[in-house]
Amino acid sequence: MTILALSIYTAALPLYNSHSNPQNLTPRLSMSACFSRSPEPIFSHSRQPKMPTSIHSSRTDTARTAPFSRDPNGPQIDDHVFDYAKFCRPSFSDLVSCVPICENQPKTLNHDEDGGDLWLRLKDEARSDIEQEPILSNFYFSSILCHDSLASALANHLSIKLSNSSLPCGTLYDLFLGVVAGDQEIIKAVKDDLRAVKERDPACISYVHCFVNFKGFLACQAHRIAHKLWSQGRKILAILIQNRASEVFAVDIHPGARIGRGILLDHATGVVIGETAVIGDNVSILHNVTLGGTGKACGNRHPKIGDGVLIGAGTCVLGNVRIGDGAKIGAGSVVLKPVPPRTTAVGNPARLVGGKENPIRLDKIPSLTMDHTSHISEWSDYVI
Amino acid sequence: MTILALSIYTAALPLYNSHSNPQNLTPRLSMSACFSRSPEPIFSHSRQPKMPTSIHSSRTDTARTAPFSRDPNGPQIDDHVFDYAKFCRPSFSDLVSCVPICENQPKTLNHDEDGGDLWLRLKDEARSDIEQEPILSNFYFSSILCHDSLASALANHLSIKLSNSSLPCGTLYDLFLGVVAGDQEIIKAVKDDLRAVKERDPACISYVHCFVNFKGFLACQAHRIAHKLWSQGRKILAILIQNRASEVFAVDIHPGARIGRGILLDHATGVVIGETAVIGDNVSILHNVTLGGTGKACGNRHPKIGDGVLIGAGTCVLGNVRIGDGAKIGAGSVVLKPVPPRTTAVGNPARLVGGKENPIRLDKIPSLTMDHTSHISEWSDYVI
Amino acid sequence: MTILALSIYTAALPLYNSHSNPQNLTPRLSMSACFSRSPEPIFSHSRQPKMPTSIHSSRTDTARTAPFSRDPNGPQIDDHVFDYAKFCRPSFSDLVSCVPICENQPKTLNHDEDGGDLWLRLKDEARSDIEQEPILSNFYFSSILCHDSLASALANHLSIKLSNSSLPCGTLYDLFLGVVAGDQEIIKAVKDDLRAVKERDPACISYVHCFVNFKGFLACQAHRIAHKLWSQGRKILAILIQNRASEVFAVDIHPGARIGRGILLDHATGVVIGETAVIGDNVSILHNVTLGGTGKACGNRHPKIGDGVLIGAGTCVLGNVRIGDGAKIGAGSVVLKPVPPRTTAVGNPARLVGGKENPIRLDKIPSLTMDHTSHISEWSDYVI
Repeated sequence: MTILALSIYTAALPLYNSHSNPQNLTPRLSMSACFSRSPEPIFSHSRQPKMPTSIHSSRTDTARTAPFSRDPNGPQIDDHVFDYAKFCRPSFSDLVSCVPICENQPKTLNHDEDGGDLWLRLKDEARSDIEQEPILSNFYFSSILCHDSLASALANHLSIKLSNSSLPCGTLYDLFLGVVAGDQEIIKAVKDDLRAVKERDPACISYVHCFVNFKGFLACQAHRIAHKLWSQGRKILAILIQNRASEVFAVDIHPGARIGRGILLDHATGVVIGETAVIGDNVSILHNVTLGGTGKACGNRHPKIGDGVLIGAGTCVLGNVRIGDGAKIGAGSVVLKPVPPRTTAVGNPARLVGGKENPIRLDKIPSLTMDHTSHISEWSDYVI
Repeated sequence: MTILALSIYTAALPLYNSHSNPQNLTPRLSMSACFSRSPEPIFSHSRQPKMPTSIHSSRTDTARTAPFSRDPNGPQIDDHVFDYAKFCRPSFSDLVSCVPICENQPKTLNHDEDGGDLWLRLKDEARSDIEQEPILSNFYFSSILCHDSLASALANHLSIKLSNSSLPCGTLYDLFLGVVAGDQEIIKAVKDDLRAVKERDPACISYVHCFVNFKGFLACQAHRIAHKLWSQGRKILAILIQNRASEVFAVDIHPGARIGRGILLDHATGVVIGETAVIGDNVSILHNVTLGGTGKACGNRHPKIGDGVLIGAGTCVLGNVRIGDGAKIGAGSVVLKPVPPRTTAVGNPARLVGGKENPIRLDKIPSLTMDHTSHISEWSDYVI
Repeated sequence: MTILALSIYTAALPLYNSHSNPQNLTPRLSMSACFSRSPEPIFSHSRQPKMPTSIHSSRTDTARTAPFSRDPNGPQIDDHVFDYAKFCRPSFSDLVSCVPICENQPKTLNHDEDGGDLWLRLKDEARSDIEQEPILSNFYFSSILCHDSLASALANHLSIKLSNSSLPCGTLYDLFLGVVAGDQEIIKAVKDDLRAVKERDPACISYVHCFVNFKGFLACQAHRIAHKLWSQGRKILAILIQNRASEVFAVDIHPGARIGRGILLDHATGVVIGETAVIGDNVSILHNVTLGGTGKACGNRHPKIGDGVLIGAGTCVLGNVRIGDGAKIGAGSVVLKPVPPRTTAVGNPARLVGGKENPIRLDKIPSLTMDHTSHISEWSDYVI
């Protein structure tokens, strides 16, 4: 496992709303800011260097207040604004420094507190689907209903997809089940991914639909297994899974890449993610997105994607550049430079909407709204 | 089925050559204009609102004269100019309002008046291929020659492609045959698509070659079946087909999308078409084209593509924008705004060749000429 | 086989470093230039027409000196600079005029003088992998160890990948083995491709890993077989292989395309290469690259890619344009015009880094360095 050079991110991690007043040290993710709906954008930051002496208290404060801070009787505000404060980790550097993602972090997309329910729900949906389409009885029975756990169903479904005449299904099933059943982090990530797809993709009609059909979801889970094997030093198997997934799903994720939870790979065809890429939580990535390297030198050479980022179709992000939390990158962009948090980059080469000096700040989480064109559409308004 | 908001298109449907003189009410598609080869471009229009009182007579006139208007002894003119008048429907709004495409509309690409001939031709070509390559005897026999109809051959071929160990071929065959054999519209569309590929793709050496090999053609037919199931409320099956086609052909078309006849999906890898997209007749779409939505709101959120449009490789069209009849969009473009009929848009963000105020008008149907670079190449002339 | 119009390239083939001084007729690839590391870039040229009277002596000189010119005791210089002089053919026109690539040309990537060793090495690596992962014993035995030659292993592996229930594996194996075993040029190209992947892709951990896993490598070999069949007039089989490879690997290469040796198709999803495209030696092409035509006219309509070219992800090169030896094209570019040798083109539409009049000259071979962002990153420096 490559140790990432954390120092390069430090200057780019603004934790304070200090744009207008560098002396203002209020933590940017305090709940009061989220609930007050002040005329100031909830997301605002500067590219001032963060102040190291304040980091620890800021993180502690956020982590402590987040799980308990939502008052059900409080004012109803937009969920995506609320959620950001709830599930976004205080600092992107946590992602970089801790693998696997730690238990004591705020849960992501935590609508279903009892994770076990999701497996029961999948089975209920499968039974309901069979009632509507009896010709799919065998399909749902072998895919879902004959299994006693989500882990078994996933291992079976992936092994059928990735097997061929020289790689028997049974061999893969045993391998996959061994990995998934023994790793609660993977199971939790699988559930977060299922919720992410169901929540963000209007074309997703049920959890079971996502589970059996969505190649982006399946490719992501194949990667989670491959990544676990890779981190155990079983590189030969990890790469074999990577490449079978690339053939079967047209999604090529190097097993070394580290990917958070609550991931939506929408449509997914042509996605390529390199070895030293890191992807935060609750990220939405469209098809044909490349998180690529440059040069053939080994070492840290791929992008680092923050929490809550949305990357539009056909975009290339190349090199060890950081895409800040909550940033949006428009379709068809080519990004070779860092993108600050909660800004919108678009174009070839990409530029910041609103300009480099004063980019427009997003006040919603783009990976959750899946809003691909706001600001971007305006940017091209003069064109056609 | 979502009801599309027709009103938004009304203002963008110019039916008259009124750019230079709004009082000139000559129908733009009158045969005289097509045959006279006047120095004025045959395709010209303005963005003036159409005049509702004239719509009906205009349509009737075109529909009445078109099928009989070509005088075989008349002057020989470019087929693509002629064809446009022959098969282009008078108004794009017809497409939006009628699904499936009505019988009483002018047929598209109607070179083979007796549709039955095409099935016989496929069988003849298969026999000829076997003579050249006897090792393919079994392949052609099971794919073509053992079937008694185009519907059966198609259902069989698709079921083999889309089956896997948990989705048996036989189940899919019965399902597909039930849909195709009972729907003459699908059979006609299949034949129009076969003709479109054969006519427009110089790499297509025969109809049977297209039928058994071209994944763009097969993905389009899988969609036609899925769309029929979707419109019958059988969403579970429809989505299953969509996602299997996305895995097998790397073409992801939501079953809700409405697609006309005479469609060429050339190379096809990476094509993504969203739920509320509408595609007219005789459209050519290259690989890696996205007709995508924006946001996760349900409702009408995907592009509307007019008749005779050509969309180059790697292009993203996002949002509920209309691409006018006979427009051309260059490779690698990002289109977030409507494109007027018979103009050329190119770039990221896309701009109109010739400028927004006075764009160059195309006088041939780009989806038929497959001319990807005229005008576009000139646009980049200063660059390299 | 289409005869290419050579004359159009003549003016674009500068063989002399004559930019600053047209009277300077020193051959640009003389060894002294390579070893001296002069402050002048090793690659520099002008767009002056080459001087036909000097061509022959220049070629002869290069060919004669190259194989013997590297003094192991000499100064250590960058391998990519050295290699260029060693393996680059003196003129791109050789590629166009000779198919298959002739034996008497300098070998490419000639690190393993005894080609037979590579097969032995594959088997050793397979045995070593089995020791690490015994569950893959059957996989490696059937894929590698049970075969007595590279030709047999390749024919078997491709036949498994490309077969389906209507195209039996055995039929394809016999066909493929017949082609590969009888053509030493293909075997040599396979080996050069294996070396290219191993050398240029930091994610490639062994030759056997590339051989059994990399879909870009496998798609390229399927093309070599299809191209041989195409050149023998067996078009039906050639196109069948093309289209199965497009389904299985998402790589669509027309069997008419002519492709040199030492090719890396990295990630490979979505690559499309047209019928009359020509690709030189030691080229690296990323995923989603299109070498496309324009119009539906038959004839010479696709790009010509020189030796040592690097083409970034998502790039479209359209039309019969020439990309000069050692050029680099940035990710996401749209190229409709010729690109001079050893320059960098980037953008949509593509422009030359440094400007059309005085483009920056590359002094290393981009396909070997795989450096996607040098110069390009600077070009977008003002943007974000």
